[in-house]
Amino acid sequence: MPTPDLAAAQGRHLDALARAYAKILTAEGYDGVLLYSGHAHRHFGDDQTASFAAFGHFLHWVPMAGLEHGWLLIRPGARPTLYFHAPADFWHLTPRLPEEAWVEAFEVELRSETAPPSLPAGRFAILGEVDAELASSLGAEANPEALTRALNELRVHKSDYEVACLREANRRALTGHRAAREVFLAGGAELDCQLAYLGAARVRESELPYQNIVGLNAHGGVLHYQHYTIDAPARRRSLLLDGGHRYRGYCADITRTWPGPDADPAFAPLVEGVTTLQQRLIAALRPGVSYVELHERMHAGLGELLAEHGLVRCSPGAAVATGITRAFCPHGLGHLLGLQVHDVAGRVAADGSPLPPPAGHPALRLTRELEAGMVVTMEPGLYIIPMLLERFRDTHDIDWHRVEGLADHGGVRIEDNVLVTVHGPDNLTLHDAE
Amino acid sequence: MPTPDLAAAQGRHLDALARAYAKILTAEGYDGVLLYSGHAHRHFGDDQTASFAAFGHFLHWVPMAGLEHGWLLIRPGARPTLYFHAPADFWHLTPRLPEEAWVEAFEVELRSETAPPSLPAGRFAILGEVDAELASSLGAEANPEALTRALNELRVHKSDYEVACLREANRRALTGHRAAREVFLAGGAELDCQLAYLGAARVRESELPYQNIVGLNAHGGVLHYQHYTIDAPARRRSLLLDGGHRYRGYCADITRTWPGPDADPAFAPLVEGVTTLQQRLIAALRPGVSYVELHERMHAGLGELLAEHGLVRCSPGAAVATGITRAFCPHGLGHLLGLQVHDVAGRVAADGSPLPPPAGHPALRLTRELEAGMVVTMEPGLYIIPMLLERFRDTHDIDWHRVEGLADHGGVRIEDNVLVTVHGPDNLTLHDAE
Repeated sequence: MPTPDLAAAQGRHLDALARAYAKILTAEGYDGVLLYSGHAHRHFGDDQTASFAAFGHFLHWVPMAGLEHGWLLIRPGARPTLYFHAPADFWHLTPRLPEEAWVEAFEVELRSETAPPSLPAGRFAILGEVDAELASSLGAEANPEALTRALNELRVHKSDYEVACLREANRRALTGHRAAREVFLAGGAELDCQLAYLGAARVRESELPYQNIVGLNAHGGVLHYQHYTIDAPARRRSLLLDGGHRYRGYCADITRTWPGPDADPAFAPLVEGVTTLQQRLIAALRPGVSYVELHERMHAGLGELLAEHGLVRCSPGAAVATGITRAFCPHGLGHLLGLQVHDVAGRVAADGSPLPPPAGHPALRLTRELEAGMVVTMEPGLYIIPMLLERFRDTHDIDWHRVEGLADHGGVRIEDNVLVTVHGPDNLTLHDAE
Repeated sequence: MPTPDLAAAQGRHLDALARAYAKILTAEGYDGVLLYSGHAHRHFGDDQTASFAAFGHFLHWVPMAGLEHGWLLIRPGARPTLYFHAPADFWHLTPRLPEEAWVEAFEVELRSETAPPSLPAGRFAILGEVDAELASSLGAEANPEALTRALNELRVHKSDYEVACLREANRRALTGHRAAREVFLAGGAELDCQLAYLGAARVRESELPYQNIVGLNAHGGVLHYQHYTIDAPARRRSLLLDGGHRYRGYCADITRTWPGPDADPAFAPLVEGVTTLQQRLIAALRPGVSYVELHERMHAGLGELLAEHGLVRCSPGAAVATGITRAFCPHGLGHLLGLQVHDVAGRVAADGSPLPPPAGHPALRLTRELEAGMVVTMEPGLYIIPMLLERFRDTHDIDWHRVEGLADHGGVRIEDNVLVTVHGPDNLTLHDAE
């Protein structure tokens, strides 16, 4: 149950959303849009289903990230209608609408069927996982690009309600981080760290916004490492934990890196260095700043760090210019965060059409000028990735002895979630509680 | 690493599979078949993927249930070729073939692309999650029915290797059951029971063959209850735990029901009664027995149990005849078990075509005459499901006082996994270790 303050903020959020949708629908020439939450899919040839997450634009209105077969009809000037799938079913616990104030903002139709509702006369679009055939059977257009882009753009600036949800998701994720760290220091395997995270954060794996990355030792250097090993390693060098949470649909995405009892003495200072760099970059967040430029400042900072810690022999500038910093950190500084962990519209032209990444930075997901209301992740990293470092083998720019001494520590990433405001950064990741 | 015995059994399994495939392919007029393991799908509009399980027919050969983008070409008289997706990827841990003997049975081609391999000249079928267009671009047929049915039938009789894998999956699942029960008795919430299960069974949620059902109190009466609540109830009446595991692709599917410290005194005897009924039904498993008839014997036994425990006032026979036992147990006695939890070909005609369920038993998934080598689940249940009992409200056949006294216990299900042999049942669920 949300606090009265949050419920009130959600009411304002929904009012503003209704006005913004009305404006966009009118501008795009639609009488309305039908949003589909989606449904879980069966594994091929099987009757068991894969995990599920509802469509972002549906969640922008309805805070139920696991809701399947929901349809939401938005028309300018009319109360939105929520078609809520609640069949009489003794096989499953029938979904129920919570007793919360936001429900009052909707006309609710409880129904047993999963098919879309019929649409009134007029020009309608359907957004979500539907095929063109189904849409045209209703006389509607499936996922038209211009409308999708306009609605994506609406999600870029977060309302007070959305910020409060993101902050709460952060708080919950951090309880998980603390528990996982304890289990790591006590000698647990990756699976144990992950289960401790889930237990403390009170969440099951399939409800997380992304699969937590729990990388012990060298696994910390695999950027999207996807397993949880069940045996603890003999030596505990490091834990890199990239763990999220979801509150009313809104995502947290936090990374911490901890040296283990068997860490090389050079590792903890590196973790410190990346943390300091991250804090410096966060301090620079404000409207009007180019995120690409911040990403470039991260590389300059990584160059300094590599030189300072003796991992490279060349100058910081040369480490950037030759691509060495990109070999140590091949991912971007961060991305937009919201109803999806990699939120929509991070790399778009003025008309909302997708843009390619900047030259030399293929993994950068956010290339916009920052604006108040954006929430971004700030996640500089530094990893020992032999596959990427190899091409510098003959340059003498890298101190291989030092680099190889850190190789089974994997790497370092420190990631917070930050709101951009006219007064500067508002870090939603509570450091003081760590 | 499998034991030498298991590795040898797997070798025999693969030899027999090659012979059986050759026979079927020749009979169906194919020069070969290409099996696709499949791949995870993205949530709509998002870059995060849902959970994944590889296609059963692919797993019949290759014991890697999480393997994506694998292709396997089987041709009569030729060594099978495994196209193994192992790109140079620093984002993910690249899949590796294990150092196990079975790999020697295959021509292995490591590759970075995900597209299907080109096919030799001849008539080929592709089985798995591919569309007709992709198949026809390779000059092949996508998922032809007759071939699929013949290969389904091959999976019905388990080899020694498969039985050993199913037995090991059972052993692992039971470690989870024991840990979950302890946490339940210590006052944990459903989520805590589930996490204890995962920790003891050393498995993550997304690797289970189905989502464990962890039903405290009334939730035990929701047959496929799909949540894990995060708060423990004030009173602990019961825990129904339907928890599985997977070993080399092969599934366990075990249910236990435990009375809690706040159980009604009438509940534990009911659990005892269902357990005794289950053991009696298991004892009757042998080749030539009709599973439909066993299912009907379950209903006769449930009628006796309901009368004996005073839940109904009518005779056991009348409880069956009027449909009361079906209201107390709307699911089937069990199903085939193997590479899928509800394994293929449980309800088919002699030619392999699908059959409807028998009249009055719409949820019965297995209607065949039993044969040696089949592995079945045996899972009688008895639940208080108000939605189903309501239609007997005016009959005076039900003792509502007693029934309502048990309503917040949910129900009872006891489920083991049993191999049918000419010598009778071989229960793969180790009772003595519980």
